[in-house]
Amino acid sequence: MRDRRSFIRKSGLALLPGLLPMAGFTSIIRDPDISVPLAGTGKNADLPPVTVNFVSDGEILSPSQQIAKLSEIDKKSAISADSYNEGGVVAALEKEFEKITGKPKAIYLPTGTMANQLAIAALSANGSKIFVQETSHVFRDEADAAQTVHGKRLIPLAKGKTGFTAEELAEAVEYYYNGEVFKTGDVTVSIENPVRRTDGGQIPFEELKKISAYCRSKNIKLHLDGARLFLASGYSGVSIKEYATLFDTVYISLYKYFGAAGGAILCGDNDLIAKMPHLVKVFGGTMYQSWPQAAMALNTLNGFEARFKASIQKADKLFTELNKLPQIKINPHPNGSNLFTGTVTEKVSTRKLSETLRKYGVLFSGFMREGKLRIAVNESILKISNEDLLKAFAEGLS
Amino acid sequence: MRDRRSFIRKSGLALLPGLLPMAGFTSIIRDPDISVPLAGTGKNADLPPVTVNFVSDGEILSPSQQIAKLSEIDKKSAISADSYNEGGVVAALEKEFEKITGKPKAIYLPTGTMANQLAIAALSANGSKIFVQETSHVFRDEADAAQTVHGKRLIPLAKGKTGFTAEELAEAVEYYYNGEVFKTGDVTVSIENPVRRTDGGQIPFEELKKISAYCRSKNIKLHLDGARLFLASGYSGVSIKEYATLFDTVYISLYKYFGAAGGAILCGDNDLIAKMPHLVKVFGGTMYQSWPQAAMALNTLNGFEARFKASIQKADKLFTELNKLPQIKINPHPNGSNLFTGTVTEKVSTRKLSETLRKYGVLFSGFMREGKLRIAVNESILKISNEDLLKAFAEGLS
Amino acid sequence: MRDRRSFIRKSGLALLPGLLPMAGFTSIIRDPDISVPLAGTGKNADLPPVTVNFVSDGEILSPSQQIAKLSEIDKKSAISADSYNEGGVVAALEKEFEKITGKPKAIYLPTGTMANQLAIAALSANGSKIFVQETSHVFRDEADAAQTVHGKRLIPLAKGKTGFTAEELAEAVEYYYNGEVFKTGDVTVSIENPVRRTDGGQIPFEELKKISAYCRSKNIKLHLDGARLFLASGYSGVSIKEYATLFDTVYISLYKYFGAAGGAILCGDNDLIAKMPHLVKVFGGTMYQSWPQAAMALNTLNGFEARFKASIQKADKLFTELNKLPQIKINPHPNGSNLFTGTVTEKVSTRKLSETLRKYGVLFSGFMREGKLRIAVNESILKISNEDLLKAFAEGLS
Amino acid sequence: MRDRRSFIRKSGLALLPGLLPMAGFTSIIRDPDISVPLAGTGKNADLPPVTVNFVSDGEILSPSQQIAKLSEIDKKSAISADSYNEGGVVAALEKEFEKITGKPKAIYLPTGTMANQLAIAALSANGSKIFVQETSHVFRDEADAAQTVHGKRLIPLAKGKTGFTAEELAEAVEYYYNGEVFKTGDVTVSIENPVRRTDGGQIPFEELKKISAYCRSKNIKLHLDGARLFLASGYSGVSIKEYATLFDTVYISLYKYFGAAGGAILCGDNDLIAKMPHLVKVFGGTMYQSWPQAAMALNTLNGFEARFKASIQKADKLFTELNKLPQIKINPHPNGSNLFTGTVTEKVSTRKLSETLRKYGVLFSGFMREGKLRIAVNESILKISNEDLLKAFAEGLS
Repeated sequence: MRDRRSFIRKSGLALLPGLLPMAGFTSIIRDPDISVPLAGTGKNADLPPVTVNFVSDGEILSPSQQIAKLSEIDKKSAISADSYNEGGVVAALEKEFEKITGKPKAIYLPTGTMANQLAIAALSANGSKIFVQETSHVFRDEADAAQTVHGKRLIPLAKGKTGFTAEELAEAVEYYYNGEVFKTGDVTVSIENPVRRTDGGQIPFEELKKISAYCRSKNIKLHLDGARLFLASGYSGVSIKEYATLFDTVYISLYKYFGAAGGAILCGDNDLIAKMPHLVKVFGGTMYQSWPQAAMALNTLNGFEARFKASIQKADKLFTELNKLPQIKINPHPNGSNLFTGTVTEKVSTRKLSETLRKYGVLFSGFMREGKLRIAVNESILKISNEDLLKAFAEGLS
Repeated sequence: MRDRRSFIRKSGLALLPGLLPMAGFTSIIRDPDISVPLAGTGKNADLPPVTVNFVSDGEILSPSQQIAKLSEIDKKSAISADSYNEGGVVAALEKEFEKITGKPKAIYLPTGTMANQLAIAALSANGSKIFVQETSHVFRDEADAAQTVHGKRLIPLAKGKTGFTAEELAEAVEYYYNGEVFKTGDVTVSIENPVRRTDGGQIPFEELKKISAYCRSKNIKLHLDGARLFLASGYSGVSIKEYATLFDTVYISLYKYFGAAGGAILCGDNDLIAKMPHLVKVFGGTMYQSWPQAAMALNTLNGFEARFKASIQKADKLFTELNKLPQIKINPHPNGSNLFTGTVTEKVSTRKLSETLRKYGVLFSGFMREGKLRIAVNESILKISNEDLLKAFAEGLS
Repeated sequence: MRDRRSFIRKSGLALLPGLLPMAGFTSIIRDPDISVPLAGTGKNADLPPVTVNFVSDGEILSPSQQIAKLSEIDKKSAISADSYNEGGVVAALEKEFEKITGKPKAIYLPTGTMANQLAIAALSANGSKIFVQETSHVFRDEADAAQTVHGKRLIPLAKGKTGFTAEELAEAVEYYYNGEVFKTGDVTVSIENPVRRTDGGQIPFEELKKISAYCRSKNIKLHLDGARLFLASGYSGVSIKEYATLFDTVYISLYKYFGAAGGAILCGDNDLIAKMPHLVKVFGGTMYQSWPQAAMALNTLNGFEARFKASIQKADKLFTELNKLPQIKINPHPNGSNLFTGTVTEKVSTRKLSETLRKYGVLFSGFMREGKLRIAVNESILKISNEDLLKAFAEGLS
Repeated sequence: MRDRRSFIRKSGLALLPGLLPMAGFTSIIRDPDISVPLAGTGKNADLPPVTVNFVSDGEILSPSQQIAKLSEIDKKSAISADSYNEGGVVAALEKEFEKITGKPKAIYLPTGTMANQLAIAALSANGSKIFVQETSHVFRDEADAAQTVHGKRLIPLAKGKTGFTAEELAEAVEYYYNGEVFKTGDVTVSIENPVRRTDGGQIPFEELKKISAYCRSKNIKLHLDGARLFLASGYSGVSIKEYATLFDTVYISLYKYFGAAGGAILCGDNDLIAKMPHLVKVFGGTMYQSWPQAAMALNTLNGFEARFKASIQKADKLFTELNKLPQIKINPHPNGSNLFTGTVTEKVSTRKLSETLRKYGVLFSGFMREGKLRIAVNESILKISNEDLLKAFAEGLS
């Protein structure tokens, strides 16, 4: 079970409550993110709503904001309800992802954990060994579901790193396949890209191509945990379809940056996806209606690529300007995506910086121990001009 | 996987599409219910919205109506978001159910199947044999999840009937426990009440008390699939708490008559419920946010008992009046709940009856083969006076 | 876990210890048989060894007798050792069973439970529902292994009876397959013949042919628990190959009447049997050497058919003669095999009968409550002439 | 499934068949050992039987020899049969192991894989993470049974090495327990000692004590795969009881050096062992009789410690003498047990050495690529004087 205290302690976020006035705020914890004040109530009632956030992979919408957005979507064109995840806007969303990924079939699932687990379980139906990154969500953040629920053996590679190379994979397959007396059937590979545990690090696309080519040559099935694939794509310039073509199955999150309250999309070939409704049912994931998640995601998806590209460019410019200030340094992130680290000089009061930014509707709670920063770029950045953001930073850093 | 054609054929609902103008309508299939036209679009745009429905356990709300309702709730008092089903309005809903059921702990789960399956899996941790009604959802409508996912042996009793007696249970336990050479640990019992497959039939409360007493005397754990428990309670006059006290765990649906787009509540003792978050996680049910479901359910729950009591009384009067008409007969339903069967005489055009009622905002698509009716009572009945309903029926039956 | 006291109480064998001098005897309990004195030691040291037994499906050999028999076999032709169940006399035994059953491939497994469970698990790889007799070993005597280890749903038919008809099977498949909303993949059938729990009852071969034809027409896989198939064959006159041809897999016991200390043979097609070594390994059944079981079974198998036929004829004659005595009645057993029931008149002292027979080397402990008898025919009957047996019975019954 | 060709190729034993006249010989493959000629038949009929072997952990007995040995045992004192592994000599063997290990309860199981798997499954009933040596049998030689059958996550430590330290274990537990957001219950540890994959390497007893103390302080359950524990004990001088006291469960093989055709002993506390019969049954391991294995093991066990101590001393002296020869070098093996490596000079004909030794009844087929030797010490060494062995070696090396 989740041990939040331990989690918060390790992530360094235990400091946060002291930094900001939390009482009366709605708080959200994102996996594996943080507690943030969203809208002011009580004695903080005079705080403006959060307009730009630097803490999350996407916009953070309060219930009111989500309801308003759904209402707006419905007014534009009446939302068509699904029934147990079939039909209506859920089907429309699936169709859209089939187009985007180029995969024959997409299906809505309630969670990313279910998407990852069912995909690798189905791909490895005739074998037990699944090679994964040691840093991957499948290996470290799904509560040993692969082993305990699906009876699989995850073999971690590239400890502490973003990815393994095709060569490292081939060596590992050789070691585990031929180094054991008893054979255990087909081998499967699951890759997360970008990787949350390495601050959004990406495996270079050329390496992914080599890994895919190796797997195809050995008849090894290959899953992509692309929860944040659109973020990778924005930074790498590689299209979703180009990524997807290298893999047998691709999972993409609907809530991390598409604004839905939950949900995931899994894409793959017809036979594999056809197995999903039964699996979702027996594992207890067949909710009555999922049109709210689908409608929201479908709406955000529309134009997302262009908006996110603009966000990246705007953030790049902002960081360039910020780095001209002596008190702050935001690090370049080669092979990265939307998560940046940085530092502030000793004299900077992080409490003052956060409070100042918050006054201007900017959520910037990413302070960690020892003056280190973590900054997330998402499309909320488009809502305030860089000029105004720089002013707010300058005030907070002074 | 779901085989809809077969399902529809067997349930007699294959006739429906011919009866009503379906083109352009949003359609909903409820388990194990029916396809119904909700709001008119296209050439049916002039149909009024559905005000009263006789086909479902609760009100049927279109996406627009659900959004409007959520907006209204949020305006009354800002909805507090949960994070991965923890905190906010989800926690508030759980607290409310702890009060209502008298159980120490309640937890929100995404589906009823997950609630049933995890409850019986946890209760039977030290045994494989689980006695159930042959007609129960757990036995016949959960895709063999208990066996295939949780490794349990369901032993069906009372084939085709609503329930078994304490005596029948005791005999069966004796037969299976002592009649087999190898012992397989503790025995568990799961009871559905009311039973959907027997038209909402109820096990008499006195018998439930005997069953519970027997189980407690034998240290047999007892789960209640009370998906529709509030409907049972309304008709039996037995309180939710009185039911709950007989069982170790109780599941109650949030979408069947509480208006949520999905979700379930499971109640039990602290230790058992404390195991749930981990299980929900590994089975892939930990959605990012569930405040929409929780907010809607909590709102409907408020005052539900009184409204449903009024609905029952109103329906009783309506049926009494209808039975005075020579063309229609609605059957009494001793030990039943909100589902009624009936008949119409040969001369009645069921197409005309349905179309006429629909014109008045009444959804009455429960026609089945050979002039048989199925009628569901829910709180939507309060929205049109019996006088007006009777007039509409009279016109349709003439 | 096994609850022996309960088992013995229910089977009526609790009476035995009082009947016979047990102290100092080696005792054997056979599933689901009885405790019997084999050879005298201590104060019973003057009892002759058991020559003929009427309590078991085969000869009962003490360790000394088994060792002597193995020694004799090895002297005739040196036994070739296997290595982890591969090669040597184990391979020779497998070849012999391929010849006898006409199946492409046979494999040695350590137990009948493993043979049954792995066969039905492999046959039902794409489905959860397995139809079985309610009286079958798979359903009632394998400790819920199918459900708990292999995640299968056993659906029992023909409660308390030897078998179901093809028609009953077809009806049940229809009911369970089409009567449930969610489909659960391919259906499998497992049949035990003869049935231990119905005193060796047999499903008529014509009915087996109909069942097989139905299954093949529906692409339903069919397993035969033929633990005692050679006993069925001896009584029905249907050859092992004729039985086997109706099924996809056939299991035959090596210890019940072939004299081995354990072991089972599973026959089927090449692909299915090729999966077994891996499954046996992961379930922990890959013993270092199994040549003792294989050598013993192979030796007994040689000439078994003829010897068992002679045993049947000799037993028939013996029973005809016994039934001429006024004190005893052995019942005819249409559609049965080697297990007979009978009665003795009230005046008969069952203790005296057993003790008298035992003096002559005859084990006849099958007395159950209320003067009822159970008598097993096996090839040990050939070792004493009917004339001498009748004399011993007459003395014991007088 | 076992891939023997690959296995043989990797282990370097593919060379053997060319070295020795194999035709007509009974061959045995031991896991993960080799094919050896045991007794001559056909054109090799004039070869003497194998008296001393340097290839195995124990004496290698042909079927004839095993039968003769069982006969001898039975004549000394009549072997008492077990029934489904209960009673008789099986119970006597269990009692003996309770005495030797000091554990409250011992149970006979058919295989070491079953013993290891059931022990760690039972110990980790409330958790999924099990820490093991990367080189251990549980991790690399049990066909992923822990993951696929028991749903466990094995976390390998000390890659390529004999063992990990208490400190390394503590670090790993910290990393995996606190470094993951979702907790997965109790942690378990399984240790193999000595380790077959590191040529019988032992974890120093002082380190085992530290590991045990750490585990007990953290309430971590600890299993010992002591398949070859008596070999470890002989070399370390630490008693079986001293080892056993550090662990919650201990498995000891019955066939590797106790002469049985198979079988294993698992020791632990009463509650844990009481769960085994049910588990053995459902996994299909409940054989009808196991008295042959138990009788053989019990007989070899009697006096084993003293004989093995003498064997070690005799081997030490032999190796000292051999190392005086210029053509051969047998390496010291600190922290090792009965497996030694060595080298021969380039001029030595390994074929001649083997053939010469074989003529004298000595099996010495441990030649591997590039002049490397592997030599196993077991109690067969007592059967030929060192003087005679040295003469045979000298002749073969010349």
